[in-house]
Amino acid sequence: MNTSGKAVTCWAAIAWKKNSPLSIEEVQVEPPKAGEVRIKMISSGICGSDDHVLKGTFPVKFPLIPGHEGAGIVESIGDKVSSVKPGDKVLTLIIPQCRECNSCLHRKGNFCEKQDVLPSSGLMLDGTSRFTCKGKSIYHSFRVSTFTEYSVVPEIAVAKIDDAAPMDKVCLISCGVPTGYGAAVQSAKVTPGSTCVIFGLGGVGSAIVMGCKASGASRIIGVDINEKKFSQARALGVTDCLNPRKLKKPVQEVVMEMTGVGVDFAFEAVGLVDTMTAAWESCNKSYGVCLIVGLASPESQLSLEAAKIITGKTLKGVCLGDYKTKDCIPQLVADYLQNKINIDPLVTHQLPFDQLHKALELYHAGEVIRCVLLF
Amino acid sequence: MNTSGKAVTCWAAIAWKKNSPLSIEEVQVEPPKAGEVRIKMISSGICGSDDHVLKGTFPVKFPLIPGHEGAGIVESIGDKVSSVKPGDKVLTLIIPQCRECNSCLHRKGNFCEKQDVLPSSGLMLDGTSRFTCKGKSIYHSFRVSTFTEYSVVPEIAVAKIDDAAPMDKVCLISCGVPTGYGAAVQSAKVTPGSTCVIFGLGGVGSAIVMGCKASGASRIIGVDINEKKFSQARALGVTDCLNPRKLKKPVQEVVMEMTGVGVDFAFEAVGLVDTMTAAWESCNKSYGVCLIVGLASPESQLSLEAAKIITGKTLKGVCLGDYKTKDCIPQLVADYLQNKINIDPLVTHQLPFDQLHKALELYHAGEVIRCVLLF
Repeated sequence: MNTSGKAVTCWAAIAWKKNSPLSIEEVQVEPPKAGEVRIKMISSGICGSDDHVLKGTFPVKFPLIPGHEGAGIVESIGDKVSSVKPGDKVLTLIIPQCRECNSCLHRKGNFCEKQDVLPSSGLMLDGTSRFTCKGKSIYHSFRVSTFTEYSVVPEIAVAKIDDAAPMDKVCLISCGVPTGYGAAVQSAKVTPGSTCVIFGLGGVGSAIVMGCKASGASRIIGVDINEKKFSQARALGVTDCLNPRKLKKPVQEVVMEMTGVGVDFAFEAVGLVDTMTAAWESCNKSYGVCLIVGLASPESQLSLEAAKIITGKTLKGVCLGDYKTKDCIPQLVADYLQNKINIDPLVTHQLPFDQLHKALELYHAGEVIRCVLLF
Repeated sequence: MNTSGKAVTCWAAIAWKKNSPLSIEEVQVEPPKAGEVRIKMISSGICGSDDHVLKGTFPVKFPLIPGHEGAGIVESIGDKVSSVKPGDKVLTLIIPQCRECNSCLHRKGNFCEKQDVLPSSGLMLDGTSRFTCKGKSIYHSFRVSTFTEYSVVPEIAVAKIDDAAPMDKVCLISCGVPTGYGAAVQSAKVTPGSTCVIFGLGGVGSAIVMGCKASGASRIIGVDINEKKFSQARALGVTDCLNPRKLKKPVQEVVMEMTGVGVDFAFEAVGLVDTMTAAWESCNKSYGVCLIVGLASPESQLSLEAAKIITGKTLKGVCLGDYKTKDCIPQLVADYLQNKINIDPLVTHQLPFDQLHKALELYHAGEVIRCVLLF
C-alpha cells in the first residue's frame, strides 16, 4: 500500500505527562513537509536521556512521543529532500547537521543550531507537530521521536546508512555508540598506555569503555552503583570495578589512591553533578582531561574549586562524540560492518515494541546495556 | 669580593604579616645547599599573584619575602648543580621543572610536583629557609622570592638564558609573558580569524592579547574595570574595549551580542570567579574554549550550569602557558632577542628597588602594565 502523501495511522508510545507510565496509542502521523522525511521505524534503543525526559528531570513539553535512538527505512520524503529517498536505510540524529549554521561551518563545532534538545520546543522546524492522537497534537522528542511505528524528522536529522546494516542493532549507532565511543576516540583522543575512569556503565558508558580499549588504554576503571553491570564491563575492557556505595571514602579519593597521580581521562556518563565532581577530582591535576558526556538536569550547578583549575586540567562537554553527525555516523556503521568496531556486546536484549514496558523495567533494573525495541 | 660559601647580608622586602606594608630590611641569605643556586637579583616584575599573597587572599606563611618574577645572575651554586654556573644570566621559575616527576615526564604536563604554589610551604625542598632577619627565619615565596638583592632557589627553578638578554626587561619572561602569551599560542592555540575575549588587561592579560594578535585573531575584545588600560590594550591589538561597570547588562551578554555566537577563545586573567563565569559564558556553546589563567583564592568555587556543558565547550586551566618551564622559557628569551615576540610594550615603568612602595602604588592604581624593579 502506498502511504506517500497521506497521514499514516499506527501505534506509538505516548507520555501524556511526566512521571506517568507510557501508553501505547493509535496515532496519526502526517506526511513529511518540505525538508522532512517520514521513516518507518525498524528499531529503537532506550537511552538514559529518554529516561530523563520521562521523569521530567529534563524539560520537554507533554504529551510527547519519546525515543530518539532509531533505525528505520524512509517511507516518503517531502519537497526539496535530496540526501535520502524512499527505501533508504537511515538513522535518526538527535543532533542534526544543517551544514549552514555557525556551529556546522566551524571546524570543530557539532552542536548544530537547528537542534531541539537545549532548549526543546517539541515541534518541527516550522513550529508545528506531525503527530496527533485522539484529536490532540502530540509533541516530538528532540524532533526525532522513535517510540512509534512511523516518525517524521527533518532531513538534516537523518543519516543514510549502508544497505547491509543489520537494522535490529544499528539503532545504537544513532546515539549511544557515537556518544560514548566518540567521546573516547574523537573528543578525548585517549592515548595508548593511559589510565581512564568511566562513571556509569550503561549503554553510553560501555561504548566509552570500548573506545578507551580500542585506543590502547592500559587501565580502565569502571564505576557504577549497580554491580550487575560489572561482568559485562569487564568483558568490554574494564580492568577495575568500583561501587561507590561500598567504599569507605569518596570514589575520587579511591581512584587517586589506585593510580597514585589521578587518571589521564575521566568520563562522566550519568548526568549528575556528584559524579561530574568525582570525575573532575579523579583527574591528574596537571594534564587530566574530564569529559562530561551525561546530560544534567537544567537547574543543577557543577561547582569546582576555582584555585585548583589553574594546575592545568581540562573539563570538556561532549555531545555525540564531537562528531558532525550526518557526515560521520554513516562511517561508524561502515566501520561496524567491516568489524572495526563491534557494537554487538552492547545489544544485550531485544524485545518487540509492544513490550516497551518490560524493556523499561529491564532498563531501570540495570539488567541491560541496551534493550533494542523491534517494530 | 668573593661571597661564595658565606651568608650574604643584603636588602630585601619583608611582609611581616598579611595586609601590612612591605618593609625593606637587612636580611641574611645563606649559601645555597646541594641542588640550589644563589642569585644576585637584577630585576623583578610585580605580578598579580604577588598582590594576592600580600593581601592574604592566597594562603602563604608569614613573614615572607615576596616576588617571583625575577631575572638575575648566578652568584654561587651548591653541590651537584650542573645546569648553571656563577655568572650565568638566569630567570626564576615559579613552576620548576624537575624532569623526574609524573607531571614532568608526561607529554603534556607542566605542573611539576616539586612546585611550592599549591600548597605553599614557604620553605626550600629540604624544609628549611635560607633567609633570616633580626634573628628570625623568613619564608620564601614559591621558593623563588625576588624582592631581595640575593635569593636562593632550587636549581630546578632556574632557567639559564642568553647572555645578550637585557636584564632590565626579561624578568617578565619569568612569569607574565609565558603565562599570558603561552595561554594563547601554546595552550589555546588561537586560530587565524578567530574571536577572543580577555578578562583583565594587566601584565598577563596584555601578554594574552599579544599572543592572540600574533596568532591572527580577527577580533580581540578586552575587558577591564580600569579604562586607563584601554589605550595600551588597543596598541597591543585589542579591537574592542569593555568596562563591565559601565554596561547595562552582564558583560557576557554584551560579548554574546557583539559576536552573535560567542567567542572562540575566552581568557580569564583576573582570578575571580565572577570573571571566570563571565569568560565561560562568553564562549560559543559548541566549540568555545575558556582558559583560566588567573589564580583564584582557595575557598572560592566556580559554579557552572551543568546541563549546558554538554554542548561542547571546554574549560581549561593554564599555568605558565602550559610550557615545561626550564625547557621552554630560554627559547622565549631567544625569540625576544630575535624580534619574534616583543615584550617592550609590557614594561611601561621601571623603578629602583628602594622605590618598591611607589611601584606597588602604581600597580594598584592600574597605571602600569608592568613596573620592573631594578636592583
